[in-house]
Amino acid sequence: MSQKFKARLIKIKTGEKNVILNESDAEEMMFRIHDRVLITKNFQRSVAMVDISESVVERGEIGFYEDFSEFPVVDGDLVEVSAAPTPTSVEFIRKKMRGKPLTKSEIHSIVKDTVSHNLSKLEVAAFLMAEEYVGMSIDEIESLTKAMVETGKTIDFGERVVDKHSIGGVPGNKVTLLIVPIVAAAGLKIPKTSSRAITSPSGTADTMELLAPVEFGEEELKRLLRDVGGYIAWGGSLDLAPADDLFIRVEHPLSIDPRPQMMASIMSKKLAVGVDTLVLDIPTGKGAKVEDFESARKLGNDFIELGNRLGIRVRCGITYGGQPVGHTVGPALEAKEALETLMGGGPNSLIEKSTSLAGMLFEMNGLATRGNGHALAKEILRSGKAYQKMREIISHQGGNPDIKPDDLPLGTERYVITAPADGYVSSISNRSINAIARAAGAPVDKGAGVKLYAKMGYSVKKGDKVVEIYSSRQSKLREAISVAMRDPPFMIEGMLLEELPGF
Amino acid sequence: MSQKFKARLIKIKTGEKNVILNESDAEEMMFRIHDRVLITKNFQRSVAMVDISESVVERGEIGFYEDFSEFPVVDGDLVEVSAAPTPTSVEFIRKKMRGKPLTKSEIHSIVKDTVSHNLSKLEVAAFLMAEEYVGMSIDEIESLTKAMVETGKTIDFGERVVDKHSIGGVPGNKVTLLIVPIVAAAGLKIPKTSSRAITSPSGTADTMELLAPVEFGEEELKRLLRDVGGYIAWGGSLDLAPADDLFIRVEHPLSIDPRPQMMASIMSKKLAVGVDTLVLDIPTGKGAKVEDFESARKLGNDFIELGNRLGIRVRCGITYGGQPVGHTVGPALEAKEALETLMGGGPNSLIEKSTSLAGMLFEMNGLATRGNGHALAKEILRSGKAYQKMREIISHQGGNPDIKPDDLPLGTERYVITAPADGYVSSISNRSINAIARAAGAPVDKGAGVKLYAKMGYSVKKGDKVVEIYSSRQSKLREAISVAMRDPPFMIEGMLLEELPGF
Repeated sequence: MSQKFKARLIKIKTGEKNVILNESDAEEMMFRIHDRVLITKNFQRSVAMVDISESVVERGEIGFYEDFSEFPVVDGDLVEVSAAPTPTSVEFIRKKMRGKPLTKSEIHSIVKDTVSHNLSKLEVAAFLMAEEYVGMSIDEIESLTKAMVETGKTIDFGERVVDKHSIGGVPGNKVTLLIVPIVAAAGLKIPKTSSRAITSPSGTADTMELLAPVEFGEEELKRLLRDVGGYIAWGGSLDLAPADDLFIRVEHPLSIDPRPQMMASIMSKKLAVGVDTLVLDIPTGKGAKVEDFESARKLGNDFIELGNRLGIRVRCGITYGGQPVGHTVGPALEAKEALETLMGGGPNSLIEKSTSLAGMLFEMNGLATRGNGHALAKEILRSGKAYQKMREIISHQGGNPDIKPDDLPLGTERYVITAPADGYVSSISNRSINAIARAAGAPVDKGAGVKLYAKMGYSVKKGDKVVEIYSSRQSKLREAISVAMRDPPFMIEGMLLEELPGF
Repeated sequence: MSQKFKARLIKIKTGEKNVILNESDAEEMMFRIHDRVLITKNFQRSVAMVDISESVVERGEIGFYEDFSEFPVVDGDLVEVSAAPTPTSVEFIRKKMRGKPLTKSEIHSIVKDTVSHNLSKLEVAAFLMAEEYVGMSIDEIESLTKAMVETGKTIDFGERVVDKHSIGGVPGNKVTLLIVPIVAAAGLKIPKTSSRAITSPSGTADTMELLAPVEFGEEELKRLLRDVGGYIAWGGSLDLAPADDLFIRVEHPLSIDPRPQMMASIMSKKLAVGVDTLVLDIPTGKGAKVEDFESARKLGNDFIELGNRLGIRVRCGITYGGQPVGHTVGPALEAKEALETLMGGGPNSLIEKSTSLAGMLFEMNGLATRGNGHALAKEILRSGKAYQKMREIISHQGGNPDIKPDDLPLGTERYVITAPADGYVSSISNRSINAIARAAGAPVDKGAGVKLYAKMGYSVKKGDKVVEIYSSRQSKLREAISVAMRDPPFMIEGMLLEELPGF
């Protein structure tokens, strides 16, 4: 029951792998909107979903959106179209939805069909929500991690490499910009790939990009690691565990972050580049991904167990995540703070967190005895060796090593929120700070963000600066202010809630 | 930050309310694919999601797909576009996802945004999956039902009306074609709206359509009810509880049927037409929606409680749903069997089930004393009064009342599956029968379906006909046969599984 159609390219990006058939053809072939069809061109095959048009394509034509990339199609190509059976992976997703554990090959099939765009967003969402609500055993998470690696590229650096990773959720976490140069300065190899922000005001790649380019191919990364010992690059174009992006594309609009998927996502990227030793930062506290110490410890143990199964030595640092790290949130503000810290300044909390995590890597790799890694990392930072290494990294990545903190382009539209009363800062809201920075334009607007003049426990007087909002646009600044009015970024002990709209 | 754009119509149906912006405009306005935008034309406003094109629309233009129907747009119209905030209902969906109960107004907001297409399919899916996994209290189900009624049209027949409904899941359930004329013949008013098949081989509306037209407007339905006392119409065009279709559009590809949604779906349609008395058929058995008696009883009690809150008197009949009702599955085959039964023939199981359920309505409405409704219904069927009423219904709906069972157009391509051994039929698989009938072309191919010559417990000899597959197309018949090979529609006691591919 296949039929030949003439291809026509339709220059629209829809975010889905759909094709368009003429209404009469669709009716004759008994296709309804979003039915799955198999498209064959010579020996290449691909599955897509059907959109229907009465006039954009004529009878006998099939329209390909720009998102169709499985094989090249040009106007006039002859392709064959037939009804595609539902992929068996859909059955496995349903099995998981019914609460049943999946086998290694069932999970592999789901991941493979996700990567091949054979599953609709809805089907991928069903899988992720089943992970969220039904959960997964450590066996299943192991299979998921491996399947995500097997369906993507891998990089073999040919030597032992270490890494650090934060499970995220805490704003202003620019520690990577300190840890990588500290660790590389000590002679360990740290090929750090980072992501851009999805829901946060700034991803590590967004922040690093203010100091140097972050997009590189595999060969360039290998050279960087060999020559400098470390880099901070964007991982997005490397096709490591490509399933991850497709899962995130669904998780993000749903605001879900199923634990098994989060673990597999992190560990698959490490496995794909052959990481030997991993320090995992688990920010814990109100408003972070993990709110209490017990859950953090359980999660850490699960990561260690998963690491054992994958051949990655894992140690976890449970850090305080109840307020932003350091005093800044937003790409340029964070890059500035990181640079200041490398140059000998910077807030103590940022120094402590970065050097503790770097120290763990030293201890795991025999550079320091147990309990002495932290001191070694601090020494490397204090001595300026980390800053020298960062200059090398910036320079090799194509940036200007002489860049100064004040060179960073902060938003010129600013608004200060002051303390409405004397007292102690009793809370800082991660959620509010994130929302304010996003509303101000971060991460697209590199200069947008939030600066904190006081953090939890600070004593402030009425009228003292507490929060300053930065943006490049007046309109965005206004939006950010209105977010702050609705959801206050901080509380002063004893402050009346009713007075808040007054600031 | 709104900007004016010139409308351009794009004749594609995508099943989503999307619009297309030029890549450069999208970048300048900081829109990413599938971001929400607010579109304003004069005083009309609508929210849509953004697709991006580099050439289908030029800079300054906005493309409207055919699915955009909130307000009329013609080529060249000037509309204003700005970033749309995430609807608050998304927050409520997330609240439900976190396991929290929702208030009446939160549920109303979700349903309203679903009907206004302000929620993406993914967001609707998240809500339904949260219903599935988290569940809903009876308070929440009541709110959901009412919200679904309030966001649609209602019909007031101005008199007391009764109804019957099956929760579905059992193939061949053509009892509505018997119950409506039986009940109407006794003088009760039964305005029966039915659905077309979604996942089944034939919906009641599909089956009825072989005897008479089923699509009517509100005024025609009122006239039919007044003049004939009953009708069997398609409910799809009446805009009763329109949220239902939008929920089903997501449930179907995910193969989910969350219990709260199923209850609200059924009861909202009844509430919207002012049903006073409802008999609910709960088919129970292996392969049906409800597999065991205890679950059926619990579900029935929940329906009765929900009915109480909505002012609908409900009685539930738990019926055997472990195999198809009667001997036929598929639109024409079922219409034929129903007609034969009304004319005095038909299988006993079909007669018993229809008259039991009709009898319950008689008892609830004082036409028979408790325990005597069944006998009255049987008498109305046997006497030919039900057939006469059905002729009236067919005629008033615009069909030919003289239609004979043999007039119904059965598929001419047929295949018989015989018993591979002597023995008793030990099981009939609903799932397999459904899949075979769908593969054969039902419900689009009206003549396609399955006829059962033997049902559970029948004694058969090797070589006896057990199942006959009907289709209008050789190729579809072959597909149906291969489904039957993979998933046998019946088992003979003692039959070796290994012999199955032999038939």
